[in-house]
Amino acid sequence: MERSVGEERIFSGRILGLERHTVILQDGSLALREVVRHPGAVAIVAFVSEQLLLVRQFRFPVQKYMLEIPAGKLDAGERPEDCARRELLEETGYVPRFLHKLITIETSPGFSDEIIHIYVGEVEKSQEPCPDEGEFVEPVLVDSKEVVKMIIGGQITDSKTVSGILLAFAGRESDKYD
Amino acid sequence: MERSVGEERIFSGRILGLERHTVILQDGSLALREVVRHPGAVAIVAFVSEQLLLVRQFRFPVQKYMLEIPAGKLDAGERPEDCARRELLEETGYVPRFLHKLITIETSPGFSDEIIHIYVGEVEKSQEPCPDEGEFVEPVLVDSKEVVKMIIGGQITDSKTVSGILLAFAGRESDKYD
Repeated sequence: MERSVGEERIFSGRILGLERHTVILQDGSLALREVVRHPGAVAIVAFVSEQLLLVRQFRFPVQKYMLEIPAGKLDAGERPEDCARRELLEETGYVPRFLHKLITIETSPGFSDEIIHIYVGEVEKSQEPCPDEGEFVEPVLVDSKEVVKMIIGGQITDSKTVSGILLAFAGRESDKYD
Repeated sequence: MERSVGEERIFSGRILGLERHTVILQDGSLALREVVRHPGAVAIVAFVSEQLLLVRQFRFPVQKYMLEIPAGKLDAGERPEDCARRELLEETGYVPRFLHKLITIETSPGFSDEIIHIYVGEVEKSQEPCPDEGEFVEPVLVDSKEVVKMIIGGQITDSKTVSGILLAFAGRESDKYD
């Protein structure tokens, strides 16, 4: 357990906040903790029959194009499942026939409070994508077994995408672990 | 592609850095990007025969105890595999008989450059743990099939842990995807 005894707000931006806390550790000593605040997000493992619906986009912090499951940040007060449907439609033009909650992951619990609610579902095309202004996202359909091979082969490396897709497959085969 | 045309350094801390960039998007318009800089880390999916070696620790940003694979930040200039051996020994007192690279994941590529190099290996006890000052980490051995059930059941939720463990199992069964 670590208890904050002093908080310094360093930055409050459009998406992120940054705080520095002085905390008391369990042996009574003091330490500093740098903490990135994030609004939380959702992501969707979206099956189109035997294919998975992914999105390709440039990620500025890591300076490369990445193949990920559709995802987006929660608006203030928004229910995660509503956010999943909204982001899926905006980024891909698809809508879910059904959605199940898979897991909520912490992406970087050592320095950030970001959580991502991951859903799995079967989806179908409804309209053209309608991304937010300044968002350039390319929907890509990939055979689902090929996607697993791309993860094993290191071509898909985003943590929510690796977690969500492998968990969707593990859940299907969970009788193996009984 | 997004190209930075203006950079503001907001914070430089003990672990994190924070920058705000003005970027040119592919349609020529301008946007802001808040970017958290991180030194990178390693993590180890450590098998002890049919068990997995996990660590339990309090994570201040998310205010809870979490069960994770052993992990730690890269020191400046340190080779990832050396870091994996060092962190494993410090946190658990175990040493690897062998280590293989599994994957390098991006944890939050939308706002951070953090990458985690994940290894898998068979490990054995060598000495008592010797954690860094102010680090309170409890090693825990769990049956490996039980760990997968804990991921499916939502009791293990850390992204590097979910990604690494499920990938280690998927890799073992990768002939399924041929």
